[in-house]
Parts: sequence; structure tokens; C-alpha cells
Amino acid sequence: MTEAVNATAATTSANAQNLADITTEEIYAGHLGGKLSVALTAPLDTQRDLSIAYTPGVAKVCLGIAEDESLAKTYTWAERLVVVVSDGTAVLGLGDIGPRASLPVMEGKAALFKKFAGLDSIPLVLDTKDVDKIVETLILLRPSFGAVNLEDISAPRCFEIEKRVIEALDCPVMHDDQHGTAIVVLAALKGAAAVQGRDMSSLKVVVSGAGAAGVACTNILLAAGVPDIIVLDSKGIVSRDRTDLNEVKAELASRTNPRDITGGPVDALAGADVFLGLSAGTIPEEFIASMAPESIVFAMSNPTPEIHPDVAAKYAAIVATGRSDFPNQINNVLAFPGVFKGALDVGARRITEGMKVAAADAIFGVVAGELSVDKIIPSPLDPRVAPAVAEAVGKAALAEGVA
Amino acid sequence: MTEAVNATAATTSANAQNLADITTEEIYAGHLGGKLSVALTAPLDTQRDLSIAYTPGVAKVCLGIAEDESLAKTYTWAERLVVVVSDGTAVLGLGDIGPRASLPVMEGKAALFKKFAGLDSIPLVLDTKDVDKIVETLILLRPSFGAVNLEDISAPRCFEIEKRVIEALDCPVMHDDQHGTAIVVLAALKGAAAVQGRDMSSLKVVVSGAGAAGVACTNILLAAGVPDIIVLDSKGIVSRDRTDLNEVKAELASRTNPRDITGGPVDALAGADVFLGLSAGTIPEEFIASMAPESIVFAMSNPTPEIHPDVAAKYAAIVATGRSDFPNQINNVLAFPGVFKGALDVGARRITEGMKVAAADAIFGVVAGELSVDKIIPSPLDPRVAPAVAEAVGKAALAEGVA
Repeated sequence: MTEAVNATAATTSANAQNLADITTEEIYAGHLGGKLSVALTAPLDTQRDLSIAYTPGVAKVCLGIAEDESLAKTYTWAERLVVVVSDGTAVLGLGDIGPRASLPVMEGKAALFKKFAGLDSIPLVLDTKDVDKIVETLILLRPSFGAVNLEDISAPRCFEIEKRVIEALDCPVMHDDQHGTAIVVLAALKGAAAVQGRDMSSLKVVVSGAGAAGVACTNILLAAGVPDIIVLDSKGIVSRDRTDLNEVKAELASRTNPRDITGGPVDALAGADVFLGLSAGTIPEEFIASMAPESIVFAMSNPTPEIHPDVAAKYAAIVATGRSDFPNQINNVLAFPGVFKGALDVGARRITEGMKVAAADAIFGVVAGELSVDKIIPSPLDPRVAPAVAEAVGKAALAEGVA
Repeated sequence: MTEAVNATAATTSANAQNLADITTEEIYAGHLGGKLSVALTAPLDTQRDLSIAYTPGVAKVCLGIAEDESLAKTYTWAERLVVVVSDGTAVLGLGDIGPRASLPVMEGKAALFKKFAGLDSIPLVLDTKDVDKIVETLILLRPSFGAVNLEDISAPRCFEIEKRVIEALDCPVMHDDQHGTAIVVLAALKGAAAVQGRDMSSLKVVVSGAGAAGVACTNILLAAGVPDIIVLDSKGIVSRDRTDLNEVKAELASRTNPRDITGGPVDALAGADVFLGLSAGTIPEEFIASMAPESIVFAMSNPTPEIHPDVAAKYAAIVATGRSDFPNQINNVLAFPGVFKGALDVGARRITEGMKVAAADAIFGVVAGELSVDKIIPSPLDPRVAPAVAEAVGKAALAEGVA
């Protein structure tokens, strides 16, 4: 197992020199024993320590919480613990690989919550695809955590699961594949438009993929004032004349495609300004070539972009991907740590649309003065982002009265 | 909140000087923010780190596990993670205080797994008392963990829950209030008998409490060759002529009380050699006074022993409690970390009776050469215990073919 990860890509990427040589062995070595561990916040070295943290002392705290449940927020880890929940049905761009195989992604997510927002987080993967069972499991476990990050759950199940969990629980709940992606895409498109001196309302956008991310990105872009959006699914343009659309896509068709274009990707992309790749598919070079001048291409499928960034760059003025080994990485890590930290910091009971837009504005704001075609969005490692997002989200939560 | 914890007791206890002054404020301060946190096992400081631990590298490990699920044991934290599961219905000696109020105990338990066995552990508390829902929740979450420590679940529900979870899951499962307690009680009684040069088979034992701990201790003592055991519940001696016994107690009556004694504690204790206090109740001084010479009293209710150790010591030759602020602390922490570590080290699919007896023998073995009336069992802080227990339990698992 020695082939390099996407070596051809890395050779021409901005991070080529430090990423081209990552081997499969090195990746497995980095996962040995898992990426998380539990640590103690207080010593357990003496009888005195035991008497305070365990018996008999602990009984005092138990009785205190029994009398006033709100004390659990202060004297347990639970109410600030983010559970990363998945059934493994839509993992990265890999599809339905099951809960066990999804664990490395969920552990990585939990690690990122800790690294960027200082939030404790654990993966909970479920061995079921039954919507009712997934929802009930989270209801039963509610006293164990403080927030729910739904992850890599297939559409359209993810929409119902998120809706029902939000309704059932009095804590922040967000399906990151939908809203985390929408937040960073909006931030990146604001950055790209600013670099080009264009107005969001002037952009013709094609969204490839009508799954979790496609639907959420379309919604947030419409809310941000982008009027001309065409959505593509595996059968072509999601248009009002389609008779094969599920409820979610039919609703999407009613709010998009204002020029009533029919057909496939070639018809949608001709003359378009922005391509948002949010599917596991690929897009032919000639389709990108047919876009308008100064086009913007976000090829965000992970781990394999819809079109190689170097190929897209032959035609597009601005290219972004979801990959950490290319410039303009549009990665949810810019959003979810700060969004949940901000929500938990102010005790928000919901994550609203206003809080999501505030997060996108905060991400854009961090690099507003440093923008370039290779920097339309902050680096995922930029330490300024999570605190800025948390502050903006917390303020929005208070302003909307959900905290 | 300044009164000392059990100050009167501590004034005469072996640990008086360092425990008498523990205040409620100090206990709450020790619980601020909870007792657990999540830590990263690998750095996330560079683009290279992100590319290995998250996208695109993580996809390699996901696909590897998708092809061979056994790889999850090596490349995720889950298969060595112990979940401490409770519904908060029988917390310490405090009773049904609910899942949120039980969290400090569950966090303490998880911290002890880490401290003494190096095992990662998290609390999962359930907002239901429904046996079916508790069992199904653990079945659905199975890919998220490697072992289940059931904790502070009321009897007789705990018996059915443990039985069904063991049957449903292919991993170590143990209700610690039953078997952890039974293991340390057996180890302590072996120690007490050895100090007095008596044979276990010669002891008349009274078990006060027919709940989780009472039933399990009775079973392990019978298995260890103690023939004369009388069990007490809130209504008196659990005897064959009782018509008010549930299934578990009726079965217990058929295997205990060989002298067919009827009545209450006073009748059971007259002339008895050993008192095992495993209830939340109290036992009058005169009852202890009526026991045989050289009597052994284990008053293990937490946080308040059935009889004050100093009072018991006026009559008993050997006194033990569950408290960390008295000598002879009979605490499950001597058993559960090593039991689960031993089981997980060898990949055991079950925790058998043989593994439990092996654990008790290992605990006794650690101090076999250092025994005294004030040291019938190792200190909970003795670093020799968990490794000795883990080794013995692992060997027993391999010998019984459950690994």
C-alpha cells in the first residue's frame, strides 16, 4: 500500500511539496487506535481525590442535580458535549458504506470540534437506517449530550431526520452536510464575487446535486439574493415539467430555474457564471468550457472533485474544491466548530437560518481584506475563523430570541 | 454549603486528617465542567495533518473498513471504548434520581476506567425506564463501542436488561453493581477469612439486601463454597415460606437459608459470622452485638454505611465499608477496570463466572502476603491490582474459549 494519494493532482497543487508523498501506510498509521481518547479533568491520585470525584463526595453533586437539573450544565460534561451522529449511508463521496466504516470520518469530525472550538465531541454511529429508530435513539440519549451534529446521512432521509430531531430536542441540532456546507459555500461565493467585483444578484448559478448539500446550498443562496439557480440531479435539470421528482426536489423546482430551461448539464452550464459541484459525479471539460467568461467553479465532491481543479482552471477564473491539498478549500470545518460553540455559549435551543447566514458573513469577514483568486475563503487552519463565527452565531441567537 | 462530609466518621478514620475537611464547595469545584474531556491522539496543526486525519486521507481508512470490518478494531477508538450505561434508577444508595442526576457517578466511573486500566470510556444515560428501549438502544449503537458497563439500574429490571444485552451483543457486558460488587466482596471475604485463619466453608453469612448486589454476591459466595447464607430484604428473611417473593428472590430462597430460619434481621444475625450490608438501610447496634465472636462486618451502602464503622468495631473483629475514608474500602474500582481491560485485551465476547472468580482471586492475591484486620483487600489506589486482574481475566477468557 504505497501509492500516493492523488499524486497527479498534488504535483501541481499549492501544497504539492508537503502532500504529494502522503502514502496509504502513513494514513493508516495516523489512524492507529483511533483519533480520539478520553482525558480526566481532575486528578485521581489520592484517597482525597477519590472521595471528591467518586464516593462519597459525588453523591452531593448527584443530589444537587436531582434538586435542580440545570446544575447538570455546570457540573457535568454532557450539556457542552457534541455528538456526531451517523448511520453511514452517505459518507463523504463514498456512499452507503455502513456505520463502522464511517467511524474514521466521525472521529475526525469530533477531533475538529475539539481542535477548533475546544468542544468535547464523540461519534455515535447507528446500526439502522430506520428514521423512527434514529430519531428515538437521540431522544432517549438526550441527557447524555448538549448538541447534535448529524453527519453523512443519505437524502431524502436526512431532511426528515433533521426536522424531527430539531422538533424533539431542546438543543442545537444541525445536519452538517446540509447547513455546514451551505454556510461555507455562501462565504466562498461572497469571496469570489468580491474578488471579481460582481454582485451576487447578477450570478447565474448551476448546482450539481439535489441531495443534502445541493438543497441546502440552493436555499441559502436564494436567501442571499441569488435569483438564477438551476439544480441538476442524476436525471438532468430539476425543472417544473419533471414528473419523477420526490417531494423535496419538486419543491426545489418550484423555487429555482426561473428561465425554465430543460435538459441536462450541457444545457444548464452553457453561459453559466457559477458551477457548484455537490455530487459524487464528474463533469466533462467541455461543459466547463461552455460557461460564461470569468466563470467560478466549486468542484467540492470529496475525495474526488467533479473535475480536476487544474483542468477547470483552463477555463474558470476562480476554482475551489473541498480538498485540503488545493487552494480555496471550501471545507465545513470553517463553519461547524464555531456554529456549535456560538450556539452552546449562549445556550441556544435552535440553530436558525439567521445564525447560519451570520456564520457565513463572519467567515467571509475574516479574509475580506485579503481576498485573491487563490484566497476567496480562509484556510481551514485559520485560527481567527472559529472565534469569529462563534461570536456572530451567538449574537444572532440572542437577537432572534432562541437563547 | 460548608458542612464537612461525614466529619464525625472521618475524625476516627484512618484517613481522618486528609478527608475530614472536604467541603461541599470543594466537591462542587471538583466537578466544574464535568470530570471528562475528549483529547486528540494525533496533531491537527497542518494541511498535511488534515489531509491524513480528515479529507482526503480518511477516505482510505473508511474504504478499508468497508472491505474488512475487523479493521475498525485497529483504526477506530470504538472497539476498545467502554460505555457506562445507566437510566439513573438506582444511583449509589440514593435511589431513582434520574439520568441527569446520575451523570456525575457515570463520569466518575468513566474516569476510573481511564485512570486504572487506560481504557477510554464515556457515559451514556438514558431517559427511559423501559427495558425494551434500553436494550434496543444499545443494539442500535453497537458499532459505536466495544464493551458495556451497565450501572445503577434498579432491580429486578437490571437482571433482565443485563441478560438481554449479553444475548444481543458480541462484546463484554457487565452490570457492575452486581458482578463488580460480587468480585470485590469475594476478594475481601477471602482476605478476612485468611486473616482469621478460617475456612470460607465454615462461615455463616447474612446478606442484607436482595437487589442487584445482594443477588450477585450471594451467587458468587455460593460458588466459592460458602454453604450457609441468609438473605434479607425489606420484609425480612428471604425464605421458602414467603409468598411475596418475585421470581429472582424465590429462586434465591431455593438456594439459601439451609437452616430454614424465618423472621427478620435479628433472627438472621444471631450467631452469624459475617454481615454483608448491600442495602440503603441501617442495622441497629444490638443486632451486630448479637453476632458470633470474631464477627466480620461489611457495611457497604454508599454514601452512608448500614452501621457506622466505629460502632460496628465495638463488636466485630473486622470491619469494612465502601467508603474511601475508612480502612478496608471494598470498592468496585478494584474489579471493573481490570475485568474490562482483560476481556478487551483478548477480544472476549463474554464475561463469564470463571472470569469473575479469577478477578477476585487476583485481587486477593495482590495483598495475600500483607494481610491484617485493617488490610483485608488492596487499596483502590494500589497500582498492582488492575494489571493483575486484567491478566487473570484474560487467561480465564482464553481458557474458557470465549475469546
